[in-house]
Amino acid sequence: MNIGVPKERRPYEFRVGLSPMGVGLLAAAGHTCFVEASAGLGAGFSDDDYLRAGARIVYSADEAFGRADVILKVARPTMDEIRLLAEGQTLLGLLHLASARPDKVEALARKQATTIAYEMIRLDDGSLPVLRPLSQIGGRMTAQIAASLLLNGRGGKGVLLGGVPGVAPAEVVILGAGTVGTEAARTFLALGAHVTLLDRDLARLQTCEARFEGRVTTLVS
Amino acid sequence: MNIGVPKERRPYEFRVGLSPMGVGLLAAAGHTCFVEASAGLGAGFSDDDYLRAGARIVYSADEAFGRADVILKVARPTMDEIRLLAEGQTLLGLLHLASARPDKVEALARKQATTIAYEMIRLDDGSLPVLRPLSQIGGRMTAQIAASLLLNGRGGKGVLLGGVPGVAPAEVVILGAGTVGTEAARTFLALGAHVTLLDRDLARLQTCEARFEGRVTTLVS
Amino acid sequence: MNIGVPKERRPYEFRVGLSPMGVGLLAAAGHTCFVEASAGLGAGFSDDDYLRAGARIVYSADEAFGRADVILKVARPTMDEIRLLAEGQTLLGLLHLASARPDKVEALARKQATTIAYEMIRLDDGSLPVLRPLSQIGGRMTAQIAASLLLNGRGGKGVLLGGVPGVAPAEVVILGAGTVGTEAARTFLALGAHVTLLDRDLARLQTCEARFEGRVTTLVS
Amino acid sequence: MNIGVPKERRPYEFRVGLSPMGVGLLAAAGHTCFVEASAGLGAGFSDDDYLRAGARIVYSADEAFGRADVILKVARPTMDEIRLLAEGQTLLGLLHLASARPDKVEALARKQATTIAYEMIRLDDGSLPVLRPLSQIGGRMTAQIAASLLLNGRGGKGVLLGGVPGVAPAEVVILGAGTVGTEAARTFLALGAHVTLLDRDLARLQTCEARFEGRVTTLVS
Amino acid sequence: MNIGVPKERRPYEFRVGLSPMGVGLLAAAGHTCFVEASAGLGAGFSDDDYLRAGARIVYSADEAFGRADVILKVARPTMDEIRLLAEGQTLLGLLHLASARPDKVEALARKQATTIAYEMIRLDDGSLPVLRPLSQIGGRMTAQIAASLLLNGRGGKGVLLGGVPGVAPAEVVILGAGTVGTEAARTFLALGAHVTLLDRDLARLQTCEARFEGRVTTLVS
Amino acid sequence: MNIGVPKERRPYEFRVGLSPMGVGLLAAAGHTCFVEASAGLGAGFSDDDYLRAGARIVYSADEAFGRADVILKVARPTMDEIRLLAEGQTLLGLLHLASARPDKVEALARKQATTIAYEMIRLDDGSLPVLRPLSQIGGRMTAQIAASLLLNGRGGKGVLLGGVPGVAPAEVVILGAGTVGTEAARTFLALGAHVTLLDRDLARLQTCEARFEGRVTTLVS
Repeated sequence: MNIGVPKERRPYEFRVGLSPMGVGLLAAAGHTCFVEASAGLGAGFSDDDYLRAGARIVYSADEAFGRADVILKVARPTMDEIRLLAEGQTLLGLLHLASARPDKVEALARKQATTIAYEMIRLDDGSLPVLRPLSQIGGRMTAQIAASLLLNGRGGKGVLLGGVPGVAPAEVVILGAGTVGTEAARTFLALGAHVTLLDRDLARLQTCEARFEGRVTTLVS
Repeated sequence: MNIGVPKERRPYEFRVGLSPMGVGLLAAAGHTCFVEASAGLGAGFSDDDYLRAGARIVYSADEAFGRADVILKVARPTMDEIRLLAEGQTLLGLLHLASARPDKVEALARKQATTIAYEMIRLDDGSLPVLRPLSQIGGRMTAQIAASLLLNGRGGKGVLLGGVPGVAPAEVVILGAGTVGTEAARTFLALGAHVTLLDRDLARLQTCEARFEGRVTTLVS
Repeated sequence: MNIGVPKERRPYEFRVGLSPMGVGLLAAAGHTCFVEASAGLGAGFSDDDYLRAGARIVYSADEAFGRADVILKVARPTMDEIRLLAEGQTLLGLLHLASARPDKVEALARKQATTIAYEMIRLDDGSLPVLRPLSQIGGRMTAQIAASLLLNGRGGKGVLLGGVPGVAPAEVVILGAGTVGTEAARTFLALGAHVTLLDRDLARLQTCEARFEGRVTTLVS
Repeated sequence: MNIGVPKERRPYEFRVGLSPMGVGLLAAAGHTCFVEASAGLGAGFSDDDYLRAGARIVYSADEAFGRADVILKVARPTMDEIRLLAEGQTLLGLLHLASARPDKVEALARKQATTIAYEMIRLDDGSLPVLRPLSQIGGRMTAQIAASLLLNGRGGKGVLLGGVPGVAPAEVVILGAGTVGTEAARTFLALGAHVTLLDRDLARLQTCEARFEGRVTTLVS
Repeated sequence: MNIGVPKERRPYEFRVGLSPMGVGLLAAAGHTCFVEASAGLGAGFSDDDYLRAGARIVYSADEAFGRADVILKVARPTMDEIRLLAEGQTLLGLLHLASARPDKVEALARKQATTIAYEMIRLDDGSLPVLRPLSQIGGRMTAQIAASLLLNGRGGKGVLLGGVPGVAPAEVVILGAGTVGTEAARTFLALGAHVTLLDRDLARLQTCEARFEGRVTTLVS
Repeated sequence: MNIGVPKERRPYEFRVGLSPMGVGLLAAAGHTCFVEASAGLGAGFSDDDYLRAGARIVYSADEAFGRADVILKVARPTMDEIRLLAEGQTLLGLLHLASARPDKVEALARKQATTIAYEMIRLDDGSLPVLRPLSQIGGRMTAQIAASLLLNGRGGKGVLLGGVPGVAPAEVVILGAGTVGTEAARTFLALGAHVTLLDRDLARLQTCEARFEGRVTTLVS
């Protein structure tokens, strides 16, 4: 099968649809991977890394899309990318169609392509094997980004999340005790903040309260 | 030497000036202990326990004081007890003279007795070997007594210190980060309360903040 | 629908069948709540709180029962309360009928009323959404009450659960590793006691041993 | 006494030499505080805050320096500020003269002013009461700033300090186990990184290893 | 029913198929237990312990097998033991047939006996109630045995798992995050080692990472 | 200066008086190190390691002692080694003379050599910079050795220190709360045992109780 890995084009998107290790596994299984030049740079993978893993480097999005049966992306395709999509192709990525503009959903639908949204993949036991680790990363980064934005030098109020002896820690309120919320809570707690976690689901709060051994305040909202 | 151990007479005073183990050590060293009957009951020691340890049981405060060179008490003596004290005797106990009524201090002074206040005993390194464990007990009991008084059945507002999932824990403010304050803080934290510790001495707060790994809020007052 | 909230009449029962916030939600949905005067005092709610939330205050149990289609209680009804119940009414509360006197169960049955025992409500996944938080509160209070009853001043033996340096902590044995038992274990551990937890179900003990990271002794009974 | 509080002029210096609370205490003691307009903005204090506390607002550095017996700054004075200093005045601040350019030290010396470096104030027991809390803040901020600079969006390599399940945490090496180093270690550990702490002083490493219960690797360098 | 408990004959096998407490329960239910002399010594049970519990002591493996309807062993039977097995008998033990030599499996099959492998018993919820506690013991012992074999005196390289201040801890890599692996990880962590846990199943690693609060490095293999 | 490093000759002594890194530092300072062949093998250092660091290898104890001004050993010298010592030489090592046979002390004294016992080196603040890390290693190894000797396969009673779910942990009693005792306590606690620590010094027990957050039972002996 021919697999296309176009370079992601949105600003602040550093990820890539397939790592060199993934290329290696697919190549060993007899597939051909067409990776757009410099697609992996943001994630720390050079074109040479891909070549050594068995990929073929292509030099335009046109080619990465055009040669592929299956296209591996990360972010939801832009309108330009949708135009490159051909009938019968399969596109995988974090599509988040529920929050997409209606005209984009319609454009995708008109292409008669097969699209698989990673974030919707659900196992028999109800778990979300792709979304969950992304939410873990997101939750942990949330606290670090918050810590950063509270500094004077970044335009913040000069608040240190955990305080210091003699100065009280920050009060953090988190809406929702899902994966993002609990991972953020864990990191905020680690940084020394006071954390209050709100959710409508008491059972979730019970799980959080036991996990954090009572160090987080839980409130039913 | 003759050692007298009168029964403590203040209400809610369950302690006794010498345990049977102490009687045993002193008897082995050749001293005679006169223990007033039922003096140890509040602390869980029967007259038989004292007899087996080598004490002689006496049946009045008069006798416990009268036969003794050294009198071992716990609480500050009452006026009645001061009257029993004779010139040249030595009295040991938690005297807390700084907070005693002036007439009592004067009465003691007139007796020309030697009085040793346990709580003032200070080692060369500045530590208070008798006061410190009493303060530790006091600090830990504080949190338990507070927990008890907050219950509806004891006339409280029905507050559970640590909350439960969905209900916030209690806010506890402690004035002073000495032994009593930090031990109380430790127990309040263990019960799940939010604790704020105030002290004028930043160095003490730094010690507390490190000891409790940032789980207590410290404020300079 | 008309909803009656009679004042609870058992001694040491401070709870009330509906909070002002609950009145507000039901009133917004078009229902009328008849709250008996002073019903909420034990839980910290004044009649004014209920009025502001939209309740109508009634001045006898007769009226609270008589005007209602649905009666919201906390504790199992007394014989007097059962007499006030009318055919066709619905009664909700923590009925604990399994431990009720047989004549009371029969009296309830004769009334042909619909009775819903909160503690029996079970979700599809087998969990008990009302019983579980009550068991959590009960378990945590257990340790605090035990701590209180062990003090001399409350008639106890003068034992401090966690001991102090140089004095061993108390040994606590808990029968049953359900919600009450494990929450009690958590609080006893927090107070510094040695805890042994017995259960017939090894899987439960495995869960507890992992949760408390081996700090509780688990024994199959 | 007249106290001058000039606005700090270095970029990224958001602090101010005296808070409104400090003005209040000094004013109550009979001193007059001349605070330069907008001196407190970076630290969150408006001119109004200072006025209400009893300060007089002045509108130039000239005036803040010129009217004062004692000048309260934060950062080491610039050459412009040194020029404003008059013989006989006293200047307090974090002077860090050991790392200052020689011509600046000479300029200060020629002024015959009294200069007190906060960071050098040392108590009888050898502790540094002003430097230590600043070092604690610095150490904790270090880890947060490092976390921030490792993100792709800030030009970093896209490393999450604590990793996520399936991805290893970052390795952090800290040179020096003083206050800055150990506070940074604490925050890096809290964020989930692997921390190795180097110092020439084994006794310091022993203290750190006990404080972090072995979770930090200590190496003698 | 007649139950036979032969002495285990493999070297380094100290276990026994039934404890005196088990004999007592079975005897109370009307069964007769024939325990081979000294069968329990390795596990700390004397023949007298068994006699007092109601067992009958027999003096050969022949008799322990010959008198029994059901034979309770621990380890997989040896060829000698298989020879003693009679048609129609039932044999229970940790048979581990999947890793047995084929001729042994065939020999067992020819006997037409009922054999129940403890380690294969699986409850409706998929859990393995006998294997799991054995795996917990095995995992915890692994770390202790490793610690022991790393000592010079046992022929090791003189490595202390947790290091000491100034000396780095050992790096431990564990393949597989099942019960054995996670229990070993827990004990290695407790001893102060750095632990990396590999598994193919990300969900398992997520569980481990949460359980150990990020103190173990998890890698997908 | 000439420095001699003889091979240690006691059984189960795997240490060596100087590491190759130490040789390098001394060689750089202009000293000559004579290391006996294979002296470092037990500690993992080959003769080549020493050669590369600048040592000269000698092939007998005679030569290692004979050529040296200063002799670096680990264990207390044997009678044979004392015979090799010459007047005016300096010998360093863990001499433990207080527990040596009197004839050995006399033999050393007759040699008129300077002997420095590492374990007696004491800094101005009273700390023991060489003894303390050795005691830390000893304390941590104690628990591991105990764990090992309790196993059936090593002749023990088959006790797992931390127990498993359903089986109680071992009870460990430690006499003395010095460095060895507290480090052993830390490791026994880590392995899940119940630990009771006895000492005559209450202040030490207070320190231990705070350090282990009450998880160790402390008793005054």
